[in-house]
Amino acid sequence: MASLCFFSAGIEFRFREVPVGGAALDSTGVPLPDDTLAAAKESDAILLGAIGGYKWDANEKHLKPETGLLQLRAGLGVFANLRPATVLPQLVDSSTLKKEVADGVDIMVVRELTGGIYFGKPRGFGSNDRGEDIGFNTEVYAASEIDRIARVAFEVARKRRGKLCSVDKANVLEASMLWRKRVTGLASEFPDVELSHMYVDNAAMQLIRNPKQFDTIVTNNIFGDILSDEASMLTGSIGMLPSASIGDLGPGLFEPIHGSAPDIAGQDKANPLATVLSAAMLLRYGLGEEEAAKRIEAAVINTLNRGFRTGDIFSGGTTLVGCKQMGEEVLRSV
Amino acid sequence: MASLCFFSAGIEFRFREVPVGGAALDSTGVPLPDDTLAAAKESDAILLGAIGGYKWDANEKHLKPETGLLQLRAGLGVFANLRPATVLPQLVDSSTLKKEVADGVDIMVVRELTGGIYFGKPRGFGSNDRGEDIGFNTEVYAASEIDRIARVAFEVARKRRGKLCSVDKANVLEASMLWRKRVTGLASEFPDVELSHMYVDNAAMQLIRNPKQFDTIVTNNIFGDILSDEASMLTGSIGMLPSASIGDLGPGLFEPIHGSAPDIAGQDKANPLATVLSAAMLLRYGLGEEEAAKRIEAAVINTLNRGFRTGDIFSGGTTLVGCKQMGEEVLRSV
Ligand SMILES: CC(C)[C@H](C(=O)O)[C@@H](O)C(=O)O
Ligand SMILES: CC(C)[C@H](C(=O)O)[C@@H](O)C(=O)O
Repeated sequence: MASLCFFSAGIEFRFREVPVGGAALDSTGVPLPDDTLAAAKESDAILLGAIGGYKWDANEKHLKPETGLLQLRAGLGVFANLRPATVLPQLVDSSTLKKEVADGVDIMVVRELTGGIYFGKPRGFGSNDRGEDIGFNTEVYAASEIDRIARVAFEVARKRRGKLCSVDKANVLEASMLWRKRVTGLASEFPDVELSHMYVDNAAMQLIRNPKQFDTIVTNNIFGDILSDEASMLTGSIGMLPSASIGDLGPGLFEPIHGSAPDIAGQDKANPLATVLSAAMLLRYGLGEEEAAKRIEAAVINTLNRGFRTGDIFSGGTTLVGCKQMGEEVLRSV
Repeated sequence: MASLCFFSAGIEFRFREVPVGGAALDSTGVPLPDDTLAAAKESDAILLGAIGGYKWDANEKHLKPETGLLQLRAGLGVFANLRPATVLPQLVDSSTLKKEVADGVDIMVVRELTGGIYFGKPRGFGSNDRGEDIGFNTEVYAASEIDRIARVAFEVARKRRGKLCSVDKANVLEASMLWRKRVTGLASEFPDVELSHMYVDNAAMQLIRNPKQFDTIVTNNIFGDILSDEASMLTGSIGMLPSASIGDLGPGLFEPIHGSAPDIAGQDKANPLATVLSAAMLLRYGLGEEEAAKRIEAAVINTLNRGFRTGDIFSGGTTLVGCKQMGEEVLRSV
């Protein structure tokens, strides 16, 4: 557990480093040690690294790195996951979409993070009346769970372009029917936000057909897992994308959306900008330090404008750098 | 109930037309009349039109057109939904993907269609221990349900390029863990097929990043609903895409993947080619008439080569035609 303290922009930072996921499995045998959760809860905000790797891939469920992440989300009660998918003009060519389709895409996916099929009970294995093995999970939402994530999404949309699209499968699932009913019921509290609804299969299509139609999307845990990854890949530069997970009380959790990329571990190739931009989200949503957040974001843009690129976003006419140098260039750009 | 009989290519066809979905609601008050299901079961194959429309959008669940479709799938036991997403060289410009990414994409999504969260019990509405409204559904798969869809997928992959990617969320869901275990267990029966596994969120990304990496995809009902729509939109021409739903015994169900497009109903604008190509799938998978299927597919390609396009796939230098004329041009191209 490292500890560090410094001042910057008039803010005093104190850092503690604690293990979760693979690192915690190696040092303590569990993916979320009690000390880690306690330290996280005592903090004002948490910056999280990526959590998996080949080494633990075959572990049983309760010993998977992912389980530690899910326990941390649940333990902190961070029910709202904010995942921006923004195409920066500097990186529009990284997208596999045609330039005219990708240019200007700026979507925020608000994903419910502590409910639904990820946590619903009953779940597990069993056998059916023919004696066959079965595996089962429960998709369940309570009115208050839907209301609180919808409120966050309405607030987010209000601060953006005022458009909120709620995604569900209300033509088939009861959990989605309740979702649609509750979200619709809240709309009158946000008269300045234009609410629409879309089925998840259609949303998966529309994100590709015309992503610019979307401003803010709100959806459940599993649909959000899928759609936020789809939306981020539209940008062609997921090594650039941060995320914020916040709750009602207590600290928020901030992390890059990319995984741990075990294939390039230790090679000084990873793009650090998603983590840097996660720190910006931490300042904005976790600590209310908007100015400091903007300074970091401006430094990242400046670094890109100066032509520096890691391998994942490299294209002709720019300067290829490693993870370490990219970090240094950002510092130089502040 | 219309009835029609004619001979073509040495095959005798007898047609019966029966209502389902919106049409059935209007004429009988239910979305799947008993007579319709009985007629479907007596047939050798079923060609289905699209089933929804604004008029019935606000109906209660048991009176939704979609419910009729789900009842028909379940009633016929068509557990395997085959959905090709093919980019035709003639239409590569219709895709919102860059030409070099879209060109040559040829994916078959094999979706489980009669199980999982669409049909799992318990489901419904209730209240939790705090007296709040809840909505819930059950994602459940039995070993035999997974095995039979996996076998279909292995067979399909074997006749294609020999690559099968099974998509699940086995890092979180027990239903997916059993899915992965069963699919893996069958691999040794198909040594000529190369099996891989992918998480659904990653699959949603990879379809955009590099769709050509996929040959055949097999996945559960809800993930298949989302991913097959995503895959089809990659082609930019979903008005072109057919689908087949087949079971172990009894007739298969063949339908375009697009919806009823109520916004252009009655305007002679719809693209009929997905329905025409569904008839080709009906001949191939429903009746084993490969030659006749190929003739229809060749006629469609020929029609495109002659430059005819409906509005949804129109681009400069081609001839814009309506639904009716497009059908006539296909007949002329046989
Ligand atoms: C690692 C996994 C459990 C996690 C999730 O499914 O939530 C990840 O995909 C994410 O989106 O953060
Ligand atoms: C209409 C709806 C019930 C249906 C589904 O979800 O299966 C449709 O989206 C499809 O993919 O055929």
